[in-house]
Amino acid sequence: MALPREYTTQSCPLARSLEILGERWTLLIVRDLFFGVTRFGDLQVHLDIPRAVLTARLALLTEAGIAARRPYASGRYEHVLTQAGQELWPIVHDLMRWADRHLAPDGPVRLFAHAECGQVLADDGSCGRCGVRPPAADVETRPGPGTPRVVRADPISVALRRPHRLLQTVRRAA
Amino acid sequence: MALPREYTTQSCPLARSLEILGERWTLLIVRDLFFGVTRFGDLQVHLDIPRAVLTARLALLTEAGIAARRPYASGRYEHVLTQAGQELWPIVHDLMRWADRHLAPDGPVRLFAHAECGQVLADDGSCGRCGVRPPAADVETRPGPGTPRVVRADPISVALRRPHRLLQTVRRAA
Repeated sequence: MALPREYTTQSCPLARSLEILGERWTLLIVRDLFFGVTRFGDLQVHLDIPRAVLTARLALLTEAGIAARRPYASGRYEHVLTQAGQELWPIVHDLMRWADRHLAPDGPVRLFAHAECGQVLADDGSCGRCGVRPPAADVETRPGPGTPRVVRADPISVALRRPHRLLQTVRRAA
Repeated sequence: MALPREYTTQSCPLARSLEILGERWTLLIVRDLFFGVTRFGDLQVHLDIPRAVLTARLALLTEAGIAARRPYASGRYEHVLTQAGQELWPIVHDLMRWADRHLAPDGPVRLFAHAECGQVLADDGSCGRCGVRPPAADVETRPGPGTPRVVRADPISVALRRPHRLLQTVRRAA
Protein backbone atom coordinates (compact mmCIF):
# COMPACT_ATOMS: atom_id res chain seq x y z
CA MET A 1 0.00 0.00 0.00
CA ALA A 2 1.46 3.38 -0.97
CA LEU A 3 1.50 5.75 1.97
CA PRO A 4 2.38 9.44 1.90
CA ARG A 5 5.73 10.64 3.22
CA GLU A 6 4.23 13.10 5.68
CA TYR A 7 2.46 12.14 8.88
CA THR A 8 -0.05 14.97 8.78
CA THR A 9 -2.11 13.73 11.71
CA GLN A 10 0.87 13.39 14.06
CA SER A 11 2.33 16.24 16.08
CA CYS A 12 5.11 14.21 17.71
CA PRO A 13 8.65 15.34 16.89
CA LEU A 14 9.43 11.73 16.06
CA ALA A 15 6.90 11.93 13.22
CA ARG A 16 8.55 15.09 11.92
CA SER A 17 12.01 13.56 11.99
CA LEU A 18 10.71 10.47 10.20
CA GLU A 19 9.23 12.59 7.43
CA ILE A 20 12.86 13.25 6.51
CA LEU A 21 14.81 10.30 7.86
CA GLY A 22 12.11 7.65 7.36
CA GLU A 23 12.32 7.77 3.60
CA ARG A 24 13.70 4.56 2.20
CA TRP A 25 17.53 4.69 1.90
CA THR A 26 17.87 8.04 3.65
CA LEU A 27 19.40 6.75 6.88
CA LEU A 28 21.75 4.53 4.87
CA ILE A 29 22.91 7.63 2.99
CA VAL A 30 23.44 9.38 6.34
CA ARG A 31 25.44 6.35 7.48
CA ASP A 32 27.61 6.58 4.35
CA LEU A 33 28.19 10.31 4.94
CA PHE A 34 29.41 9.39 8.44
CA PHE A 35 31.67 6.79 6.80
CA GLY A 36 33.13 9.55 4.63
CA VAL A 37 31.48 8.45 1.38
CA THR A 38 30.69 11.92 0.08
CA ARG A 39 30.70 11.91 -3.71
CA PHE A 40 27.64 11.08 -5.76
CA GLY A 41 29.35 8.35 -7.78
CA ASP A 42 30.83 6.76 -4.67
CA LEU A 43 27.49 6.80 -2.84
CA GLN A 44 25.80 5.27 -5.84
CA VAL A 45 28.36 2.49 -6.18
CA HIS A 46 28.32 1.73 -2.46
CA LEU A 47 24.55 1.83 -2.02
CA ASP A 48 23.73 0.36 -5.44
CA ILE A 49 20.57 2.44 -5.84
CA PRO A 50 19.07 4.25 -8.82
CA ARG A 51 20.52 7.69 -9.53
CA ALA A 52 17.08 9.29 -9.29
CA VAL A 53 16.54 7.94 -5.78
CA LEU A 54 19.95 9.10 -4.60
CA THR A 55 19.42 12.54 -6.15
CA ALA A 56 16.04 12.92 -4.46
CA ARG A 57 17.31 11.79 -1.07
CA LEU A 58 20.36 14.06 -1.15
CA ALA A 59 18.11 16.99 -2.09
CA LEU A 60 15.81 16.22 0.86
CA LEU A 61 18.76 15.95 3.27
CA THR A 62 20.17 19.22 1.99
CA GLU A 63 16.81 20.99 2.20
CA ALA A 64 16.39 19.72 5.77
CA GLY A 65 19.80 21.07 6.78
CA ILE A 66 21.23 17.62 7.50
CA ALA A 67 23.70 17.60 4.61
CA ALA A 68 25.38 20.37 2.62
CA ARG A 69 27.14 20.55 -0.73
CA ARG A 70 30.85 21.35 -0.65
CA PRO A 71 32.91 22.03 -3.78
CA TYR A 72 35.92 19.75 -4.20
CA ALA A 73 36.87 20.62 -7.77
CA SER A 74 35.78 23.12 -10.37
CA GLY A 75 32.03 22.62 -10.77
CA ARG A 76 32.03 19.42 -8.72
CA TYR A 77 30.43 18.98 -5.31
CA GLU A 78 30.50 16.42 -2.58
CA HIS A 79 27.98 16.02 0.25
CA VAL A 80 28.94 16.41 3.89
CA LEU A 81 26.95 16.29 7.12
CA THR A 82 26.15 19.61 8.77
CA GLN A 83 26.31 20.02 12.54
CA ALA A 84 22.64 18.95 12.74
CA GLY A 85 23.48 15.92 10.62
CA GLN A 86 26.47 14.99 12.77
CA GLU A 87 24.19 15.08 15.81
CA LEU A 88 22.46 12.01 14.35
CA TRP A 89 25.54 9.95 15.23
CA PRO A 90 24.21 8.53 18.55
CA ILE A 91 21.03 7.40 16.79
CA VAL A 92 22.89 5.75 13.90
CA HIS A 93 25.36 4.11 16.29
CA ASP A 94 22.65 2.88 18.68
CA LEU A 95 20.59 1.46 15.81
CA MET A 96 23.61 -0.42 14.46
CA ARG A 97 24.44 -1.80 17.91
CA TRP A 98 20.79 -2.74 18.54
CA ALA A 99 20.82 -4.66 15.26
CA ASP A 100 24.11 -6.34 16.18
CA ARG A 101 22.61 -7.57 19.46
CA HIS A 102 19.31 -8.75 18.05
CA LEU A 103 19.82 -9.51 14.37
CA ALA A 104 23.50 -10.55 13.99
CA PRO A 105 24.13 -14.10 15.22
CA ASP A 106 27.89 -13.97 14.55
CA GLY A 107 28.59 -10.74 16.39
CA PRO A 108 29.15 -7.19 15.10
CA VAL A 109 29.82 -6.84 11.40
CA ARG A 110 31.51 -3.50 12.08
CA LEU A 111 33.21 -2.07 15.16
CA PHE A 112 33.37 1.54 16.33
CA ALA A 113 36.19 2.67 18.57
CA HIS A 114 37.26 5.86 20.29
CA ALA A 115 40.00 7.08 17.95
CA GLU A 116 42.00 8.68 20.78
CA CYS A 117 42.50 5.48 22.78
CA GLY A 118 41.36 2.62 20.52
CA GLN A 119 38.72 1.36 22.98
CA VAL A 120 35.67 -0.17 21.25
CA LEU A 121 32.61 1.88 22.19
CA ALA A 122 29.97 0.45 24.52
CA ASP A 123 26.46 -0.13 23.23
CA ASP A 124 25.45 3.36 24.33
CA GLY A 125 28.29 4.93 22.34
CA SER A 126 30.47 5.72 25.34
CA CYS A 127 34.17 4.97 25.74
CA GLY A 128 34.65 2.80 28.82
CA ARG A 129 38.26 3.91 29.12
CA CYS A 130 37.83 7.69 28.84
CA GLY A 131 34.27 8.01 30.15
CA VAL A 132 33.10 10.16 27.23
CA ARG A 133 30.62 9.66 24.40
CA PRO A 134 32.86 10.78 21.53
CA PRO A 135 31.37 12.68 18.62
CA ALA A 136 31.55 11.01 15.23
CA ALA A 137 34.73 12.90 14.32
CA ASP A 138 36.53 11.09 17.16
CA VAL A 139 35.33 7.63 16.18
CA GLU A 140 37.18 5.06 14.08
CA THR A 141 35.42 2.17 12.35
CA ARG A 142 36.77 -1.18 11.19
CA PRO A 143 35.25 -4.56 10.28
CA GLY A 144 34.13 -6.71 13.23
CA PRO A 145 34.06 -10.49 13.73
CA GLY A 146 30.54 -10.96 12.31
CA THR A 147 30.03 -12.46 8.89
CA PRO A 148 28.57 -9.90 6.53
CA ARG A 149 25.38 -11.02 4.83
CA VAL A 150 26.75 -9.63 1.58
CA VAL A 151 30.45 -9.28 0.79
CA ARG A 152 30.79 -6.37 -1.59
CA ALA A 153 33.66 -5.97 -4.05
CA ASP A 154 33.04 -2.37 -5.10
CA PRO A 155 35.99 -0.01 -4.43
CA ILE A 156 34.21 1.86 -1.63
CA SER A 157 33.32 -1.32 0.26
CA VAL A 158 36.91 -2.51 -0.12
CA ALA A 159 38.26 0.83 1.14
CA LEU A 160 35.92 0.70 4.15
CA ARG A 161 37.43 -2.63 5.26
CA ARG A 162 40.48 -0.69 6.40
CA PRO A 163 40.31 1.16 9.75
CA HIS A 164 38.89 4.54 8.94
CA ARG A 165 38.01 7.62 10.94
CA LEU A 166 34.41 8.77 10.53
CA LEU A 167 33.70 11.94 8.55
CA GLN A 168 37.06 11.75 6.76
CA THR A 169 36.51 11.39 3.03
CA VAL A 170 37.17 7.81 2.04
CA ARG A 171 39.44 7.16 -0.95
CA ARG A 172 38.60 4.44 -3.42
CA ALA A 173 40.85 1.42 -3.02
CA ALA A 174 43.56 1.37 -5.68
CA MET B 1 9.26 5.22 -7.00
CA ALA B 2 8.33 1.98 -5.25
CA LEU B 3 11.32 0.41 -3.56
CA PRO B 4 11.51 -3.00 -1.90
CA ARG B 5 11.49 -3.30 1.87
CA GLU B 6 14.70 -5.27 2.01
CA TYR B 7 18.16 -3.87 1.36
CA THR B 8 19.52 -7.00 -0.25
CA THR B 9 22.80 -5.43 -1.35
CA GLN B 10 23.67 -4.05 2.10
CA SER B 11 25.35 -6.05 4.84
CA CYS B 12 25.35 -3.26 7.43
CA PRO B 13 23.37 -3.98 10.61
CA LEU B 14 21.73 -0.59 10.13
CA ALA B 15 20.23 -1.87 6.88
CA ARG B 16 18.89 -4.95 8.65
CA SER B 17 17.30 -2.92 11.43
CA LEU B 18 15.72 -0.60 8.86
CA GLU B 19 14.18 -3.55 7.04
CA ILE B 20 11.98 -3.81 10.13
CA LEU B 21 11.92 -0.35 11.66
CA GLY B 22 12.15 1.62 8.42
CA GLU B 23 8.69 0.64 7.27
CA ARG B 24 6.35 3.60 7.23
CA TRP B 25 4.57 4.04 10.59
CA THR B 26 6.53 1.30 12.34
CA LEU B 27 8.62 3.56 14.58
CA LEU B 28 5.51 5.57 15.44
CA ILE B 29 3.83 2.34 16.53
CA VAL B 30 6.91 1.56 18.65
CA ARG B 31 6.64 5.06 20.15
CA ASP B 32 2.98 4.42 21.01
CA LEU B 33 3.88 1.10 22.63
CA PHE B 34 6.39 3.01 24.80
CA PHE B 35 3.58 5.46 25.59
CA GLY B 36 1.45 2.52 26.80
CA VAL B 37 -0.96 2.53 23.87
CA THR B 38 -1.26 -1.23 23.52
CA ARG B 39 -4.69 -2.13 22.17
CA PHE B 40 -5.42 -2.32 18.46
CA GLY B 41 -8.35 0.09 18.60
CA ASP B 42 -6.41 2.59 20.67
CA LEU B 43 -3.41 2.45 18.33
CA GLN B 44 -5.67 2.92 15.35
CA VAL B 45 -7.43 5.92 16.87
CA HIS B 46 -4.21 7.53 17.99
CA LEU B 47 -2.25 6.93 14.79
CA ASP B 48 -5.22 7.38 12.47
CA ILE B 49 -3.99 4.80 9.97
CA PRO B 50 -5.79 2.10 7.98
CA ARG B 51 -6.48 -1.13 9.87
CA ALA B 52 -4.62 -3.15 7.24
CA VAL B 53 -1.44 -1.10 7.69
CA LEU B 54 -1.58 -1.37 11.47
CA THR B 55 -2.22 -5.12 11.27
CA ALA B 56 0.73 -5.64 8.92
CA ARG B 57 3.10 -3.52 11.02
CA LEU B 58 2.16 -5.22 14.29
CA ALA B 59 2.68 -8.60 12.64
CA LEU B 60 6.15 -7.51 11.45
CA LEU B 61 7.08 -6.21 14.92
CA THR B 62 5.88 -9.44 16.50
CA GLU B 63 7.71 -11.62 13.99
CA ALA B 64 10.90 -9.61 14.60
CA GLY B 65 10.64 -10.11 18.36
CA ILE B 66 10.16 -6.40 19.08
CA ALA B 67 6.54 -6.69 20.25
CA ALA B 68 4.52 -9.56 21.69
CA ARG B 69 0.82 -10.25 22.10
CA ARG B 70 -0.48 -10.43 25.67
CA PRO B 71 -4.04 -11.51 26.57
CA TYR B 72 -5.97 -8.93 28.55
CA ALA B 73 -9.46 -10.48 28.35
CA SER B 74 -10.95 -13.67 27.00
CA GLY B 75 -9.87 -13.89 23.36
CA ARG B 76 -8.51 -10.33 23.34
CA TYR B 77 -4.87 -9.34 23.01
CA GLU B 78 -2.86 -6.22 23.47
CA HIS B 79 0.64 -5.54 22.14
CA VAL B 80 3.60 -4.89 24.40
CA LEU B 81 7.28 -4.31 23.76
CA THR B 82 9.62 -7.22 24.43
CA GLN B 83 13.03 -6.68 26.03
CA ALA B 84 14.51 -6.18 22.54
CA GLY B 85 11.78 -3.66 21.81
CA GLN B 86 12.37 -1.78 25.05
CA GLU B 87 16.04 -1.50 24.12
CA LEU B 88 14.94 0.81 21.29
CA TRP B 89 14.16 3.49 23.88
CA PRO B 90 17.45 5.42 23.56
CA ILE B 91 16.99 5.57 19.79
CA VAL B 92 13.38 6.76 20.00
CA HIS B 93 14.26 9.31 22.70
CA ASP B 94 17.32 10.63 20.83
CA LEU B 95 15.33 10.97 17.59
CA MET B 96 12.61 12.94 19.37
CA ARG B 97 15.15 15.22 21.03
CA TRP B 98 17.03 15.68 17.76
CA ALA B 99 13.76 16.73 16.12
CA ASP B 100 13.00 19.07 19.02
CA ARG B 101 16.36 20.78 18.57
CA HIS B 102 16.25 21.06 14.80
CA LEU B 103 12.60 20.98 13.73
CA ALA B 104 10.60 22.46 16.65
CA PRO B 105 10.91 26.26 16.79
CA ASP B 106 8.78 26.57 19.96
CA GLY B 107 10.67 24.04 22.04
CA PRO B 108 9.85 20.44 22.92
CA VAL B 109 6.29 19.31 22.28
CA ARG B 110 6.77 16.55 24.84
CA LEU B 111 9.06 16.21 27.85
CA PHE B 112 10.64 13.07 29.29
CA ALA B 113 11.69 12.98 32.92
CA HIS B 114 13.33 10.51 35.26
CA ALA B 115 10.29 9.22 37.19
CA GLU B 116 12.29 8.68 40.39
CA CYS B 117 13.37 12.31 40.79
CA GLY B 118 11.35 14.32 38.26
CA GLN B 119 14.42 15.69 36.45
CA VAL B 120 13.87 16.25 32.73
CA LEU B 121 16.28 14.02 30.81
CA ALA B 122 19.22 15.52 28.95
CA ASP B 123 19.38 15.22 25.18
CA ASP B 124 21.35 11.98 25.52
CA GLY B 125 18.65 10.46 27.72
CA SER B 126 20.60 10.77 30.96
CA CYS B 127 19.34 12.18 34.26
CA GLY B 128 21.58 15.08 35.28
CA ARG B 129 20.57 14.66 38.91
CA CYS B 130 21.08 10.91 39.34
CA GLY B 131 23.75 10.33 36.69
CA VAL B 132 21.94 7.38 35.10
CA ARG B 133 20.31 6.78 31.72
CA PRO B 134 17.00 5.39 32.96
CA PRO B 135 15.29 2.61 31.01
CA ALA B 136 11.89 3.44 29.55
CA ALA B 137 10.08 1.91 32.54
CA ASP B 138 11.62 4.61 34.75
CA VAL B 139 10.68 7.51 32.48
CA GLU B 140 7.63 9.75 32.76
CA THR B 141 6.31 11.81 29.85
CA ARG B 142 4.20 14.96 29.83
CA PRO B 143 3.45 17.74 27.33
CA GLY B 144 6.22 20.32 26.86
CA PRO B 145 6.11 24.04 26.05
CA GLY B 146 6.19 23.60 22.26
CA THR B 147 3.07 24.09 20.20
CA PRO B 148 1.96 20.82 18.64
CA ARG B 149 1.54 21.01 14.89
CA VAL B 150 -1.72 19.10 15.28
CA VAL B 151 -3.86 19.18 18.41
CA ARG B 152 -5.70 15.88 18.57
CA ALA B 153 -9.01 15.38 20.35
CA ASP B 154 -9.15 11.59 20.30
CA PRO B 155 -9.36 9.97 23.76
CA ILE B 156 -5.82 8.56 23.64
CA SER B 157 -4.27 11.93 22.73
CA VAL B 158 -6.25 13.54 25.55
CA ALA B 159 -5.13 10.87 28.01
CA LEU B 160 -1.50 11.34 26.98
CA ARG B 161 -1.64 15.03 27.95
CA ARG B 162 -1.54 13.93 31.57
CA PRO B 163 1.83 12.96 33.08
CA HIS B 164 2.22 9.30 32.32
CA ARG B 165 4.87 6.69 32.99
CA LEU B 166 6.13 4.91 29.88
CA LEU B 167 5.15 1.28 29.30
CA GLN B 168 2.14 1.54 31.63
CA THR B 169 -1.05 0.91 29.69
CA VAL B 170 -2.77 4.22 29.07
CA ARG B 171 -6.46 4.48 29.86
CA ARG B 172 -8.78 6.34 27.54
CA ALA B 173 -9.84 9.69 28.98
CA ALA B 174 -13.36 9.49 30.44
